[in-house]
Amino acid sequence: MNFSSKLMEQAVEAFSSLPGIGKKSALRLVLHLLHKDMDEVEQFSKALVDLKKNIKECKVCHNLSDSDVCTICVDTHRKQGVICVVESIRDVMAIENTGQFRGVYHILGGVIKPIEGIGPDQLNITTLVERAKKEEVTEIVMAISPTIEGETTTFYISKQLKNISVNISTIARGVAFGGELQYADELTLGRSISARIPYHTSE
Amino acid sequence: MNFSSKLMEQAVEAFSSLPGIGKKSALRLVLHLLHKDMDEVEQFSKALVDLKKNIKECKVCHNLSDSDVCTICVDTHRKQGVICVVESIRDVMAIENTGQFRGVYHILGGVIKPIEGIGPDQLNITTLVERAKKEEVTEIVMAISPTIEGETTTFYISKQLKNISVNISTIARGVAFGGELQYADELTLGRSISARIPYHTSE
Repeated sequence: MNFSSKLMEQAVEAFSSLPGIGKKSALRLVLHLLHKDMDEVEQFSKALVDLKKNIKECKVCHNLSDSDVCTICVDTHRKQGVICVVESIRDVMAIENTGQFRGVYHILGGVIKPIEGIGPDQLNITTLVERAKKEEVTEIVMAISPTIEGETTTFYISKQLKNISVNISTIARGVAFGGELQYADELTLGRSISARIPYHTSE
Repeated sequence: MNFSSKLMEQAVEAFSSLPGIGKKSALRLVLHLLHKDMDEVEQFSKALVDLKKNIKECKVCHNLSDSDVCTICVDTHRKQGVICVVESIRDVMAIENTGQFRGVYHILGGVIKPIEGIGPDQLNITTLVERAKKEEVTEIVMAISPTIEGETTTFYISKQLKNISVNISTIARGVAFGGELQYADELTLGRSISARIPYHTSE
């Protein structure tokens, strides 16, 4: 792209370095920001620097947090004894959005991927085992993606927790709501039949 | 979306205020920035504030510029007597990218849209007429989108330039390269036949 302005070029370069944003989209975003007030642009850029400067990792669950321990881990209304193990902070948000879980989380920071050199030591597994040893912890919910790597990670963690008296559960797999049976893959359909549950009506 | 961190929330809000970026994309961008070095994030945010603080409007052509007069308007290798009239800075970039135009530009800042209350007074037409009066200006190339509003604007400007001895041309309309005749609209096809040009071969 041909810029007559160095300032424009820098700003467009900055945006187009982000994933999924090409030069044309970057230009659109920059022109949009140019039409905003100075205050708004400063606020925008401050929000990013503030985030990078001040964000911490929760000492307990490895979630991103404003303080040393995140708001979920200090929330006494939550069941601190039920720990949901997830891959990333995005999974925390996805589960929080459902409003169906009132326990706490433990973020692994990925799954075991030998091909990419990610072994158990690169993940937050040791701290999970330490947490699980505490008396108040009653259940570990494994909420890891049902991929090969995910299943391996779940299996590895369950082995680590073997000698600790804690219940381990995994999220239910099955045909998605709104999904059609004929389009479900065999494995999912097979498991959802073998793991069938009693039918409840509101009658 | 449910954030356990105020800092995250602010950064995601900032990104999702941009056009075409929803909450989920914003989160992806923020997480991407979080994995970058502090330096890079500061550079990113500085590029935006610098742009907003220091960008100027070229006194001659109304292009965005780092200085009072833009690099195109001061370029002595360009034909300063051929002025291409466009709607916005994006059109300047599009034309510059073709590498087919070596004159200068004049950015109107929009087209006449009575419905949205944009009349000729809101556009940079007076300054164009003043520029056209200068002796060295020989040609005004109207490169405005062939919409109803665009054609109206072109017509209005041509009326304003009536008494000035300057040639007015418009960019050629016709079937696009790679376009198929059967899919071209009647108006475009009709005009491209009536405005047919001699066929040149390289023989």
